[in-house]
Amino acid sequence: MTEPAFQDQYPDDVSHCFGCGRLNDHGHQLKSRWDGDETVAWFRPEPYHTATPGFVYGGLIASLVDCHGTATAAAASHRAEGRPMGPDETLRFVTASLHVDFLRPTPLGGPLQVRGQVETLTARKAVVAVSVIADGTVCARGRVVAVRMPETMGATAGPAARIMEDAGS
Amino acid sequence: MTEPAFQDQYPDDVSHCFGCGRLNDHGHQLKSRWDGDETVAWFRPEPYHTATPGFVYGGLIASLVDCHGTATAAAASHRAEGRPMGPDETLRFVTASLHVDFLRPTPLGGPLQVRGQVETLTARKAVVAVSVIADGTVCARGRVVAVRMPETMGATAGPAARIMEDAGS
Repeated sequence: MTEPAFQDQYPDDVSHCFGCGRLNDHGHQLKSRWDGDETVAWFRPEPYHTATPGFVYGGLIASLVDCHGTATAAAASHRAEGRPMGPDETLRFVTASLHVDFLRPTPLGGPLQVRGQVETLTARKAVVAVSVIADGTVCARGRVVAVRMPETMGATAGPAARIMEDAGS
Repeated sequence: MTEPAFQDQYPDDVSHCFGCGRLNDHGHQLKSRWDGDETVAWFRPEPYHTATPGFVYGGLIASLVDCHGTATAAAASHRAEGRPMGPDETLRFVTASLHVDFLRPTPLGGPLQVRGQVETLTARKAVVAVSVIADGTVCARGRVVAVRMPETMGATAGPAARIMEDAGS
């Protein structure tokens, strides 16, 4: 049986992200899972996700890097703490900083493989390296600095803002 | 009379970008213009462009930074060379690297102001600093390294890939 995706184990109130929330009907609904010590997600861009005709636009690639990075941060935190993800338990991370190097134009048409590797992990912060691969060729490399989402983020930006500023990049 | 947006002066064959192309009916159709020595664009996210409820998802913010950055690079190159933009003439830039620091959660609901400042400009490369502002507060700061799009990008990724790799970040 396939393990459920990390994002499908987020609590309902943090499952509305356009990039990866299972409760966002308009969104990309990215699904990330473990693949050994790395993480992987697959995504097939729509024909209109163009940069110039034939290539994927950079904003979508940045979105994939971002959501796969924060999902990897959540899963890695659970693995490090030895407790399973679940709808009442799952830690949720937000992005403090995002970097993407576009190594070559990403061809539009086939599925993209998104791979994540945890570079550093502490109780409140993770740095995740992410690659976006088309037909075996790495087209973009990114890095996400993800920080633990404060419980209050839904209610007030204050604590979240402080945590994000503290985290640096 | 309002000046036409930079993106509305791109040649047809490079006007399909999901983030800013006037010929992409599904896309964001971002419009960037001069505001003195800086550039500005306004964008109102849709209600479903959520991170957690009430906040804008990071992938959209990255898209705005990206497209406003490359548009600013094109406009600045024209201004530096003293020749107007136009559908047969406009230089087009692509993104070699993109960085975004999310300083605080970006509230969802009102229009976002996107401001660009050219940091460096050469014949084939520009570095543009971009801020995303909600209701007077800077919520994200980004930096785009943009390189001249080779004429062959529509036909083959080879030359574009070489230019993007040369440009570094």
